[in-house]
Amino acid sequence: MIATVIGLGLIGGSLALSLKDKGLCTQVTGIEQSEKNAVKALELGLVDSIVTLDEALEKSDLIVLATPVDVIPVMATKILNRIRPNQILMDMGSTKQELCEVIMMHPNRGRLVATHPMWGTENSGPEAAEHNAFKGRTVVICEKESSDNDALAVVENIYRTLEMPIRYMSAEEQDTHCAYVSHISHITSFALALTVLEKEREEEHIFDLAGGGFESTVRLAKSLPQTWAPIFLGNKYNVLDVLREHIHQLQILRRMIERDDREGLVEAMHKANKIREILK
Amino acid sequence: MIATVIGLGLIGGSLALSLKDKGLCTQVTGIEQSEKNAVKALELGLVDSIVTLDEALEKSDLIVLATPVDVIPVMATKILNRIRPNQILMDMGSTKQELCEVIMMHPNRGRLVATHPMWGTENSGPEAAEHNAFKGRTVVICEKESSDNDALAVVENIYRTLEMPIRYMSAEEQDTHCAYVSHISHITSFALALTVLEKEREEEHIFDLAGGGFESTVRLAKSLPQTWAPIFLGNKYNVLDVLREHIHQLQILRRMIERDDREGLVEAMHKANKIREILK
Repeated sequence: MIATVIGLGLIGGSLALSLKDKGLCTQVTGIEQSEKNAVKALELGLVDSIVTLDEALEKSDLIVLATPVDVIPVMATKILNRIRPNQILMDMGSTKQELCEVIMMHPNRGRLVATHPMWGTENSGPEAAEHNAFKGRTVVICEKESSDNDALAVVENIYRTLEMPIRYMSAEEQDTHCAYVSHISHITSFALALTVLEKEREEEHIFDLAGGGFESTVRLAKSLPQTWAPIFLGNKYNVLDVLREHIHQLQILRRMIERDDREGLVEAMHKANKIREILK
Repeated sequence: MIATVIGLGLIGGSLALSLKDKGLCTQVTGIEQSEKNAVKALELGLVDSIVTLDEALEKSDLIVLATPVDVIPVMATKILNRIRPNQILMDMGSTKQELCEVIMMHPNRGRLVATHPMWGTENSGPEAAEHNAFKGRTVVICEKESSDNDALAVVENIYRTLEMPIRYMSAEEQDTHCAYVSHISHITSFALALTVLEKEREEEHIFDLAGGGFESTVRLAKSLPQTWAPIFLGNKYNVLDVLREHIHQLQILRRMIERDDREGLVEAMHKANKIREILK
């Protein structure tokens, strides 16, 4: 199988590596808007060559969209306009409602498989790509009934070969769940970094005193704005909903601290402790 | 040197291990309120024996307070009431203003060295104790001018042997800084866990979809309520101040998402990205 990955950053670059590492593809080519990242991706051996979209549409069995989510719906439509019946398009974006709605009536809708592998790090660009990145992480496949069986089978086989458990759900469900377990963590982390940067003028102290706790909660604040702004805006209503609840929870804790309500605090934290069993 | 550690949980247990591992003490005894934890600490070899406070005051060169912060001021006072001129008391609590104020006028104030090693995990109890836990982490020593030179020298030598950089500051400074780089991370993490637990009723989905990002921001929500409630309340005004700023930052991000202000979001996240250089 020949594959072309569009967008050779953290996600696309890591998938390109896995496709080769696992022997799923004999050839992996790439499309990358940034000249600098294209050169880097070649240097790092993420892809065998850089191609144009025309070349990809001519030669590739599989085209993978791994760009920021805001450009996926239009790019997917343009590719579906020209795709051949034996070619497969798959996306790896973090939000799915917009994409699934835009391509809903497309005559070639069946050639696209909408996927979201639940993996990422705070790093970005071709240098952030990792071998064996996705192993053990869940992948969501959305609206599988809208994909052609053969296309679905190929994509399922890829993710199974990468040892990823597959969950099927609607685009709506996936966007709601991801607001809770991924998008909100990023917003919180960005806000935490801004809080500390705003208040703590003596940077030396942040550096010295920041224990492991701070580093882990603030880690995601290192993430790429160009990746995350489109995700937050593309999942706007879910994100606003979770954010409202999160601010509400912070205000409850704040009032308890204000009132010296030790019992209330302990009870709330005990409740929060349940996350330990859930994540086990 | 013979040492007694009071409170054989995550912090006290780890220090007990280090004191033996590094050959700083020939004997380390422990005092532990919970019968179950005392048995466990012995089983795990954290301490050589469990003693009473009377025995500790008779035999130990060094007594270490590693209990929840709310009991430290009173315990410290009681121990200072009976300490001999060649004995040393040190505490490891996360807040310092209350302690330093309570013992300020004590005739034996000089025998206490107030310290806060910037290390911890989300785990608790004797089982959570780790060998070599503190290496490379900063330790804060507060109001060093109030400690006797010989007591300070012994405590500094302990932390240097554990390979910990030492920072000196006032109790006030330490409590302010720790609100930013430690306490707020815990509150955010607890609130995030509560948000997700509140909203996400299908726990299976949390379990399946929670990527590495969520796990790291929510990790601290596994922490022990009995440890953290006293810290938040003991550092109340600083914590409320940081919490106010954090909620404000979340509200700013929320308004940007509401208004589709992509440019504003990208700019704010770029600003937050600075945390990468600071933590490097």
